[in-house]
Amino acid sequence: MRNDKIEKILSELNLSSSDIDSSALVSIDGLMMSSVLEQGVDEDHVAAMSAAVLSIGERTAMELSRGELEQVLVKGKEGYILVTHAGPDAVITVVAKSSAKLGLVFLDVKRAAKQIEELLK
Amino acid sequence: MRNDKIEKILSELNLSSSDIDSSALVSIDGLMMSSVLEQGVDEDHVAAMSAAVLSIGERTAMELSRGELEQVLVKGKEGYILVTHAGPDAVITVVAKSSAKLGLVFLDVKRAAKQIEELLK
Repeated sequence: MRNDKIEKILSELNLSSSDIDSSALVSIDGLMMSSVLEQGVDEDHVAAMSAAVLSIGERTAMELSRGELEQVLVKGKEGYILVTHAGPDAVITVVAKSSAKLGLVFLDVKRAAKQIEELLK
Repeated sequence: MRNDKIEKILSELNLSSSDIDSSALVSIDGLMMSSVLEQGVDEDHVAAMSAAVLSIGERTAMELSRGELEQVLVKGKEGYILVTHAGPDAVITVVAKSSAKLGLVFLDVKRAAKQIEELLK
């Protein structure tokens, strides 16, 4: 039931922009909780990279006095990976095309993260 | 001479916005090349975290098919760290306050990265 709701939020996130290829909810220790991935994307890769990005992001924010980590954005020539805290124990990872409008993606992911945070309470 | 020019570019970057606290040029293997840091910021921390962020960013962009890494943004509750490729062998790391206007910072860093890339050729 809760899982269905989480998957619905991720599906809606993917549908919010044609530039979002995949979304996933990953626990902070790197276990996949729910995902709506485009074909050919490996669930384990997404989970592992999310946890690695989160770990380095947290360390960096701490070492350079930027407070508690909220988000990490990785920008490649062909697109983005956005890892965003959804409550204290999980992150939403979004994989998007380079044509994505970042401001809108930030907004939609923030909304989804809040909804999922409520569900995980 | 070249070092003076790089330091000037970093100083100008810091001056472009009062929300930018520190800027540094770090080699991709984590050695500090030049820096204009606010008081109390440790040069070694900046260099080490830049290299760590870069390494995970590159791995993530590759594993999730986002092409060559251009930039990583770490957002904490109290500010940002932005790591941007400046040519193939170095990155500019900028540490900014949470009040920073990201769009402008992206623009200014991109310009500085291009200038430094030319100098490093």
